[in-house]
Amino acid sequence: MIPEKLLEILKQDGVVAIATSGEDGAHLVNTWHRYVHISPDGRLLIPAGRMRKTEANVARNPNVLLTLGSSQVEGFHGNGTGFLVEGKAAFITDGPDFDFMKAKFGWMRATLAVTIVSTTQTL
Amino acid sequence: MIPEKLLEILKQDGVVAIATSGEDGAHLVNTWHRYVHISPDGRLLIPAGRMRKTEANVARNPNVLLTLGSSQVEGFHGNGTGFLVEGKAAFITDGPDFDFMKAKFGWMRATLAVTIVSTTQTL
Repeated sequence: MIPEKLLEILKQDGVVAIATSGEDGAHLVNTWHRYVHISPDGRLLIPAGRMRKTEANVARNPNVLLTLGSSQVEGFHGNGTGFLVEGKAAFITDGPDFDFMKAKFGWMRATLAVTIVSTTQTL
Repeated sequence: MIPEKLLEILKQDGVVAIATSGEDGAHLVNTWHRYVHISPDGRLLIPAGRMRKTEANVARNPNVLLTLGSSQVEGFHGNGTGFLVEGKAAFITDGPDFDFMKAKFGWMRATLAVTIVSTTQTL
C-alpha cells in the first residue's frame, strides 16, 4: 500500500531521485513527480529517456532507492515532508505497461517499473 | 565554480537527494534546497540531523552524488532543469563551518561538507 501522504507529494511539483548500486558505487538520476504513474497493482512506472547506467546497475542488482518530498505537504514538524522508498526495479520495453507509458511520454525508450518494498516518511 | 543555473535552483523550493556508497549498496537521504549553504571556497554545507548511515558510508568512501532540480528554472527543453553533482564529503563537528551552520540550524549535530568534483546539467 502506498501511503496517502506519498500520493499527495507526487501531486506537487518536485523532483524524484533514483539511486542504484553499481560495481563502482552508487549512481543517481532524477525525474519529475509528474512523470511517476502508479500501476493498478501499485508499482511506480517512470519513463526512461537515458538512464543507461541505471539500467545496467538494475540488471546486476535490482535494489533501488527513491527519495521525494514537498514543502507543500505536512510532515512531522509542520509543513514539508519526504519519503524514502525501497524497491525492486525492472526496465520494461514492451507490453501493456510500456504501451501505457509510451502513449504519455513519446520520448521514452523504456519504462522503469519499481515494485515497492517499503516506504518510510523521513520528516 | 558552481554554475549560475545551479545557484538559481537552490533559490527555489525543492529537495536535494544525497547518495552514498556502502558495503551493502547505495544509500539515499534528502534535504531541502534552502538548507544548503555555499562556503566562501565553494563547498556545499548541509546540516545533518540524523544521516548516521550517510556518515558511516562517507567514512569508508567519501564519494557522494547529489541531485537537485526545479521546474521554475529553464533547462535544455524549456522550463525545468536539474543537476547531478559529484563530490567528496566530510562530516564536520567543530570549527568555523560547523559554528556557522549551527547558528542557523540549532537542531543539527554535524555539518555535511561537500567539495564539488563536477556538476552536470541533466535536463
